Amino acid sequence: MCAYALRPNREVVHPEWTSPVADKLDLVERVIESTIDSAVELACEISSHVFSAGGKRIRPALVVLSAGACGAQVDAPRVTGIAAAAELIHTASLLHDDVVDAANARRGVSTANAKWGNTLSVLGGDFLLSKAFSLLADADGPGVLTVLSAAAVSMAESEMLQAVCEGSIDSWRAGYWRIIHGKTASLMAACCECGAVLAAADESVRLAFRDYGTSFGVAFQITDDLLDIIGDPAQTGKDIGTDLVNGKFTLPVLLAYERGLALTPLVGSGRLSAEDARRVAVQVVECGAAEEARRVAEDYAGRARNALTEIADSDYKAALNALASSITARDL
Amino acid sequence: MCAYALRPNREVVHPEWTSPVADKLDLVERVIESTIDSAVELACEISSHVFSAGGKRIRPALVVLSAGACGAQVDAPRVTGIAAAAELIHTASLLHDDVVDAANARRGVSTANAKWGNTLSVLGGDFLLSKAFSLLADADGPGVLTVLSAAAVSMAESEMLQAVCEGSIDSWRAGYWRIIHGKTASLMAACCECGAVLAAADESVRLAFRDYGTSFGVAFQITDDLLDIIGDPAQTGKDIGTDLVNGKFTLPVLLAYERGLALTPLVGSGRLSAEDARRVAVQVVECGAAEEARRVAEDYAGRARNALTEIADSDYKAALNALASSITARDL
Repeated sequence: MCAYALRPNREVVHPEWTSPVADKLDLVERVIESTIDSAVELACEISSHVFSAGGKRIRPALVVLSAGACGAQVDAPRVTGIAAAAELIHTASLLHDDVVDAANARRGVSTANAKWGNTLSVLGGDFLLSKAFSLLADADGPGVLTVLSAAAVSMAESEMLQAVCEGSIDSWRAGYWRIIHGKTASLMAACCECGAVLAAADESVRLAFRDYGTSFGVAFQITDDLLDIIGDPAQTGKDIGTDLVNGKFTLPVLLAYERGLALTPLVGSGRLSAEDARRVAVQVVECGAAEEARRVAEDYAGRARNALTEIADSDYKAALNALASSITARDL
Repeated sequence: MCAYALRPNREVVHPEWTSPVADKLDLVERVIESTIDSAVELACEISSHVFSAGGKRIRPALVVLSAGACGAQVDAPRVTGIAAAAELIHTASLLHDDVVDAANARRGVSTANAKWGNTLSVLGGDFLLSKAFSLLADADGPGVLTVLSAAAVSMAESEMLQAVCEGSIDSWRAGYWRIIHGKTASLMAACCECGAVLAAADESVRLAFRDYGTSFGVAFQITDDLLDIIGDPAQTGKDIGTDLVNGKFTLPVLLAYERGLALTPLVGSGRLSAEDARRVAVQVVECGAAEEARRVAEDYAGRARNALTEIADSDYKAALNALASSITARDL
C-alpha cells in the first residue's frame, strides 16, 4: 500500500460555480485518493502524480450537479463514486494522450511519460481505466463486472511490476509468482468465477471455480514461459529466448539460476542478445531446470483438477479437467 | 461500419476438450465480431487483425464451461456476452504488451504495433478494453455503466481518428467535429446523463442533461483549441501552437484556412516547426479567425444553457448555467 495524498503541496481551490457542491467534490477527491491506492507502489505513484498535477475536476462536478439538479441526494456514496470514476476515465485518456503526443509537460508539470517512460504510462492508463470500471461495478453491487474489472486492475498492476523488474534477475526472483498470478491467472480465475456467478452458485462453489482458474492460469503461464525455452519457433511463432532478450527471467531460468547457471556475466544491459539468449536456453534444458519447471506446471494443473472435486460431474466439468491436463502438454 | 469477418482465411478449429461447448464458442466469436464493429474503420480493422491472428479462446471457454458445470444455461446471451468480454480484456492487454515489448510478431503474424505503430495499438487496446466493459454493462441492463463505457469507447475511437488525421489539413476539416465530440463531449455528456440516471429521472430529462453535456463539451474543447493559439503559456503550461507542432488543425486554424491563410507551404512533414506554429498563431488572430472560433464556442455554451430550460430551477442548475457561461472565458 502506498500513502500518497493528492496535491500534497497545493490548496484545493474550487471555482465559484462549484459552490453548491464544493464539499461533495472534496469527498470525490477522497474517493479518488483511496481508489488509486495499490499494492504496486508505482501504480499509485504514477496515478498520484497525474492527479496531483491539478485539473479542474469538471467531470465529477458535472455528475454531482446534474444529479442534484434532477433531485438526487448528492452526497450518496453512489453519486460520489460515479463522479470519481468519470475523472479516472478522463485521466486514463490523458496518460495515453501524452504518450501519443510525446508531450513533456501538462498544466506546467512533467508528464508521466517524461518521468517514467511510455511503457509505464500506457500501463498506468490501463490501471486507471480498469479502476474506473471497478468503481462503477461497486456502485451497482457485486456481480460479474466486479469480478472482471478487478482482474483487469490486477493485470495492469502486474504488467507494471513486470516492466519495473525488467532486466533484473533479483527482481524477477522476488516478483515472479506475483507477476504471473496478476498478468495471467487473475483473468482466468475471474472467467471461472463468472461462470459460477452466472449460475447463481453458492460462495463455496464460486471459490472452487476461482481456485481452479488460478491454478490453471499459473500452469498455463509456466508452460508459456517454458515454451520460450524449448518451444518450436515454427509452432509458437517466436524465437527461442525472446523473454530473455526482453529482460524477463521466468521460472525455468530462475530454477537454472538457483542451480548455479552463470547468468550474471551475460546480463550487462539487463537484456540478453539473441545469441546469448539461445545459449542460455540450451543450458536451462541441460541442467534439468526446464524439466523441473514442467513438473511445477503439472503440479498446478493437478491442483486445478483437485479444486473441482466437490463439484457434481458433468460433461462441462470433464472438459475443464481435460483442459487442465492438456495445458502443460501444449506446443503453442 | 466496417465489414471485416474474423479469420477470413482460417477454419476455426476448437481443441477436443471444448466439444461440449464448441457451438457456444462459435456464438462467442459472432459476439466478438459484432462488438468490434466501429464507425471508425481503423478501430475495427486493428481489432479484426488481432482476433484473426488466432488465439485459443481459452478465457471464453472457461466462462462457458464453468457456467455449464454450475448448471447455468450456457447458450444464454448473458453467458456468451460475458465470455466475449473476457476475451476482449485479454486481447486489449496483448495489444499493449506488444507495444511494451516492441514485439514484431505474435502467433507468427505481424503485431498491430509493427503494422500500425505504437499510438494506434495503445488506442486500439483502449477501444477493446472499453468495449469489454460496454458488453458487461449490456449484460446487466442499462445504467450508468452503459453510459460511461459507451463514452470510453467513443473516446478511444476519436483518439484513433485524430491520430490518423495527424498532419493532414483536409482530414481535420472533414473530421474535426467528430473528433471533438468523441474525445471530449462524449464523456461530459455521459457525466451529465449519469446524474439524471442516478436520480432515476425521465427519458426527456436524461436527454436534456445529455444535450447540455454535449454542447458544453464542444464549447470546452473549442476553447481549449483556442487557448493553443491565444493562451498565456504561463497559465496553460504549454507553448503557443503545440497543437500545430503535433499536426493537429483545430477550429481557429481551420477557420483561418478557409479565410485564405496559406498553411499548405508550411506543412511539409505534416507537422509545423515551433517557429512556424507561433507565426501561424499570430496570423490566426490577425485574420479574425480566433475571434470567430470564440463566437462559435459561446454559441455552444448558449445551447448548453438552453438544453436545461425545461428543468426546474435549483442551485445546481444555476451552477451548471454559470459553468457554461464561464467556460469560454477561462484562461487555462
